[in-house]
Amino acid sequence: MQTSWEYRFANRTNRMASSVIRELLKLTEQPDIISFGGGLPAPEVFPVKQFQAACNYVLEHEASQALQYSSTDGYLPLRKMIAERTARYAVEVSPDNILITSGSQQALDFIGRVFINQGDHIIVESPTYLGALQAWNAYGAQYLCVRSDENGMVTDELERALRIGPKFIYVLPNFQNPTGTTLSLERRKQLVELADRYGVPIVEDDPYGQLRFEGDHLPSLVSLDGELRGDDGCYTGNVIYLSTFSKLLAPGIRLAWVIAPEQVIRKLIQAKQAADLNTAAFNQMTAYEVSKDGFLDEHVKHIRSVYHERRDVMLEIMEEMFPSECHWTHPQGGMFLWGILPEYMDAADVLKIAIERKVAFVPGQSFHPDNSGKNTMRLNFSYSNPETIREGITRLGLLLKELVAKNGNK
Amino acid sequence: MQTSWEYRFANRTNRMASSVIRELLKLTEQPDIISFGGGLPAPEVFPVKQFQAACNYVLEHEASQALQYSSTDGYLPLRKMIAERTARYAVEVSPDNILITSGSQQALDFIGRVFINQGDHIIVESPTYLGALQAWNAYGAQYLCVRSDENGMVTDELERALRIGPKFIYVLPNFQNPTGTTLSLERRKQLVELADRYGVPIVEDDPYGQLRFEGDHLPSLVSLDGELRGDDGCYTGNVIYLSTFSKLLAPGIRLAWVIAPEQVIRKLIQAKQAADLNTAAFNQMTAYEVSKDGFLDEHVKHIRSVYHERRDVMLEIMEEMFPSECHWTHPQGGMFLWGILPEYMDAADVLKIAIERKVAFVPGQSFHPDNSGKNTMRLNFSYSNPETIREGITRLGLLLKELVAKNGNK
Repeated sequence: MQTSWEYRFANRTNRMASSVIRELLKLTEQPDIISFGGGLPAPEVFPVKQFQAACNYVLEHEASQALQYSSTDGYLPLRKMIAERTARYAVEVSPDNILITSGSQQALDFIGRVFINQGDHIIVESPTYLGALQAWNAYGAQYLCVRSDENGMVTDELERALRIGPKFIYVLPNFQNPTGTTLSLERRKQLVELADRYGVPIVEDDPYGQLRFEGDHLPSLVSLDGELRGDDGCYTGNVIYLSTFSKLLAPGIRLAWVIAPEQVIRKLIQAKQAADLNTAAFNQMTAYEVSKDGFLDEHVKHIRSVYHERRDVMLEIMEEMFPSECHWTHPQGGMFLWGILPEYMDAADVLKIAIERKVAFVPGQSFHPDNSGKNTMRLNFSYSNPETIREGITRLGLLLKELVAKNGNK
Repeated sequence: MQTSWEYRFANRTNRMASSVIRELLKLTEQPDIISFGGGLPAPEVFPVKQFQAACNYVLEHEASQALQYSSTDGYLPLRKMIAERTARYAVEVSPDNILITSGSQQALDFIGRVFINQGDHIIVESPTYLGALQAWNAYGAQYLCVRSDENGMVTDELERALRIGPKFIYVLPNFQNPTGTTLSLERRKQLVELADRYGVPIVEDDPYGQLRFEGDHLPSLVSLDGELRGDDGCYTGNVIYLSTFSKLLAPGIRLAWVIAPEQVIRKLIQAKQAADLNTAAFNQMTAYEVSKDGFLDEHVKHIRSVYHERRDVMLEIMEEMFPSECHWTHPQGGMFLWGILPEYMDAADVLKIAIERKVAFVPGQSFHPDNSGKNTMRLNFSYSNPETIREGITRLGLLLKELVAKNGNK
């Protein structure tokens, strides 16, 4: 007898769905497709030799700790290192303000688990990171969308949403996923002040902040919030800050971190205990060995220069090949740029033809909680080398020109 | 202004609590305490040299895959290897019946996420694995306890609970955590038949099944269920089976797996996408390299012989040193045995004095969803070497004898 499982699944599973992006990634795994779809770092910048040396060191000298169960909060030297870097770039924190997670996606999940009751409202930029929506849909979140433009979330329109009583504000201030835009300093200040005034916390998701290859570094929301309240010690403010080693070292080790007031970290630790006990000690110790003694800072410079070149090539060929009816962002860092097609185009339909021509991207609609943005697309410039970018963008430009011409002939 | 977070946390966080065991582990981390408290494998059996060779191989030949994002279901060669082993030991499955998770704790969490609506009933043995209760409390599970004895869950008492309409039955048939007992063959058959008759799935948690050092291997519930329904291909039955590399290779790499009908695996994959995207490719590829070509089978024999000796020493000294008012199980494998103290003793009080005398264990009450079992204790025999076990059990025996004598003098 075949067992039917459908009626046994919990109600929340109706709100869970496979990620369009991840399904698409499968489709574009054919080696002859040039994919600007995924959000993958360049494999050429993985510090492979350093990982090898670190693995050998850890296994020769610290194997019985590295291969054993470990504490839920994370490897102390790694948390100390992150605390020092955070004090340098943002705000004073101690290791007790830090939780190591298995990638930022896990941090997003834990934030959902710890904060979201079914029906709670979350303020998000529109468009926003799909993985956050996926994580929080399972907890029954509803979204209040605030419009964004080339300077990020339009904070002048934030108060309307704040008056509804949201649980928190979710924002990616640097080289946002999917748009590549950066929140301006003025808006950062306004955002932090409004959040404080309404007593609504901010979740600041910052995977790409260190990957700026143009323009000046802007202070993070957590540091502006720290200044606002004049903390003279470890951070006790209103911002939960996320970042990750996925874009600085490699995503295949699944290591990220959360910075938050201790009270929040303690709750997140309880969530992690129930969810997976601890993040692999081996990975934490290896990442620490790779990163220490200044290697991480040197390495980040290298990543910046590689991505800088790739973005330049992509922008150059888009300028040359894309029809004038299309528009796109000019990111100062990160891994993505955002294309806006003529309103009569549906990016999902464009993708179908594009795949036949062996080039792929992500249609932008799924990044919009309100299902708008049919004529938008996300393009990744970090993964493909310049030669491949040139070829892929040329194919895409030719296709878009054809579609524009066809529409003109109607 | 200090921000207060308490009122912002979701309702479910009231049901989340730090694990007593993990808090205790911290307390007993002082190096001069002999701890039988944790559930740690012996570090002496970690295959360190093999891990080192595997890391070097993977980083030299497959770094761009190992350090990159990867598919949510898991590394295909690893799933194939697990499928082959499962076919050998239990039931025919394909890689599509397998999901790789970051430890079995994550599998337990995902099962909660996919199956448990608030208020759902779960049938458990009493006592049962604390981590499962912790995972499912967050989803609002309620527990129907079925008594267990030296042959595991008393399946004659199962129907009463099945009539209440539970979501699933959770059972650890081999060398159970915490009791060390094994479900008899007769009861396994009865359990599988009753679950099928009532249409209630079984979650079979089997971290220790391959660590049998005495007696005959008993068929797993998933294989008995497969036989029952006469599947002539990939498994489509009523059992969700969990196992882990934590006890076969090392817990510090966080690798485990779920075997289930494809329909269930697909839902679990959706849960994992939202929870952490994928388990570290590097760890999966390394574990595959370590395990392949028969190493895993050879290595398991070695673990068995080490744990066999340690169990023998623990039983021998308990026999010699524990007062006759105490009783305990005689596990045929695994990592734990279970002590039953005289009814007038509270194991938590005993622990406080024990820690002063530099020896620790886990009081048994927290393994009981109904809060019974105050006079019980879990002792781990895998972590400490024979010399240390001798010393620690002697200290504990002397303490228990004192407490018995003191009670006699009342």
